[in-house]
Amino acid sequence: MLDYPALAALAEVIRRSSFDGAAAALHVTPSAISQRIRTLEERMGAVLIDRGPPVRATAQGLRLAAHLDQVRLLEAGLSDPAPGLPVLRMAVNADSLAVWAMPALASAPGLVDLVIDDQDHALDWLRAGLVVAAITSDSRPVPGCDSLRLGAMRYRATASPDFVARYFFDGVTAETLAGAPSLCFNGKDALQARWVHALTGQRPILPMHRLPDPHAFADATRLGLGWGMNPETLIGGDVAQGRLIDLAPDHALDVPLFWQFSRITAQAIAPLTQAMKKAATANLLP
Amino acid sequence: MLDYPALAALAEVIRRSSFDGAAAALHVTPSAISQRIRTLEERMGAVLIDRGPPVRATAQGLRLAAHLDQVRLLEAGLSDPAPGLPVLRMAVNADSLAVWAMPALASAPGLVDLVIDDQDHALDWLRAGLVVAAITSDSRPVPGCDSLRLGAMRYRATASPDFVARYFFDGVTAETLAGAPSLCFNGKDALQARWVHALTGQRPILPMHRLPDPHAFADATRLGLGWGMNPETLIGGDVAQGRLIDLAPDHALDVPLFWQFSRITAQAIAPLTQAMKKAATANLLP
Repeated sequence: MLDYPALAALAEVIRRSSFDGAAAALHVTPSAISQRIRTLEERMGAVLIDRGPPVRATAQGLRLAAHLDQVRLLEAGLSDPAPGLPVLRMAVNADSLAVWAMPALASAPGLVDLVIDDQDHALDWLRAGLVVAAITSDSRPVPGCDSLRLGAMRYRATASPDFVARYFFDGVTAETLAGAPSLCFNGKDALQARWVHALTGQRPILPMHRLPDPHAFADATRLGLGWGMNPETLIGGDVAQGRLIDLAPDHALDVPLFWQFSRITAQAIAPLTQAMKKAATANLLP
Repeated sequence: MLDYPALAALAEVIRRSSFDGAAAALHVTPSAISQRIRTLEERMGAVLIDRGPPVRATAQGLRLAAHLDQVRLLEAGLSDPAPGLPVLRMAVNADSLAVWAMPALASAPGLVDLVIDDQDHALDWLRAGLVVAAITSDSRPVPGCDSLRLGAMRYRATASPDFVARYFFDGVTAETLAGAPSLCFNGKDALQARWVHALTGQRPILPMHRLPDPHAFADATRLGLGWGMNPETLIGGDVAQGRLIDLAPDHALDVPLFWQFSRITAQAIAPLTQAMKKAATANLLP
């Protein structure tokens, strides 16, 4: 059996990025925290915390903390629950969070702990056992997880009127796209390239800005920094009012989304899964 | 002298998280990219790319790519500039990006590449030489950098009316705060704890949700998930219309912000620095 008080110390150090913060939260001395983590590291034969600065979990430390979260979630379902709220660690893609998922997440039975990642990569978190649920674009269920189709999020290739006049005067083609700065969420974001390939059949190299925030991404589109794939719900009003131009109204890009969750804690997060389904039905395409 | 074509290969692999993507961008074969990076790694005596998946830079790989960005930025200032836009890698705190900084960043002379971090930690990126400029709450200039005061961002402790009725019926005290879920941007975010200490003189342990996105953070406050420190500009309308309650109108928290930038590329980014100053004057407290 694992040493759960030591795991609790580990989880608090990770959540608060601080030995002193963890000590205060658990009402023990910082040296007691250090001692528990050192003992745990010796027993596991691995470094669990990179002492930094900044203080950070190693991959194995993260896995152990996630295991503790799951155990706490299961405990919360017992008739005589342990004191304190369980922590629900979930991976959510930034666009879902910006557009429709927050109200559903607010119904989580415990403390919400979000990891934000690209929809194509949220699954990595689930596969690594670091989160109990994830919104992802991948339908293949992870071992030990169930997958529920939420619907599809529609993206539109958009740019400001000035940007269109400057870069797409000769139309939106592989040639003009190769010369026009694009916006990219991060290095993992393939939406722009996927859309260009669907539209032109070619794969030109896109000059790109990187803006890892959906609202900043939309703002940058409005400001004419580049063109990019924006969620229709987020920029529909701008298109209707002419502040943004849809580069190809017949070529929307629909990204299917799935709610994948660990079977072992499925019962404990059932109200959240229900809320997620309802919010998705109201906000996504079927 | 460093092997700059190899550095360019390295930087593209990092930006696109892909050897194939880098090969396409540079019009060479993927094996040419691999070869260049392997040679560079041998010469540097260090692993520069973690082959993954996912493909990721090591700390030393990031430093080399940032060096290339700086060299390109300097080249762009020569009378006969190199083809292609220079990349400006900058660290920006999420709240500044959400509230006021995007229009200024849009005036950057090149491709914008944003790293988003807490205002208390953006400086780490500058100190490590990974970015050419940063918005930070720390005025101490980093060696080789200049520091310019931008103004102060005002935060207000806010919660929904229902949340206040449920958790703060007996007032906002160290005791009631210890039992009320708080919102926290990430493990580095100390604003809530700082405000509680300023208000009560005590340091109660705050139960906390983690929501690493300013808009989701404000949404979660509106939804009654927890209380949190929100930028006044972002939630002023909600407070005025009664959708949010200011927990202590006499106790705002002002966070001074600074624009710190590498002296070596100061000339090249001067228009950006001007735009940053102007936007700050219009949006921050003096």
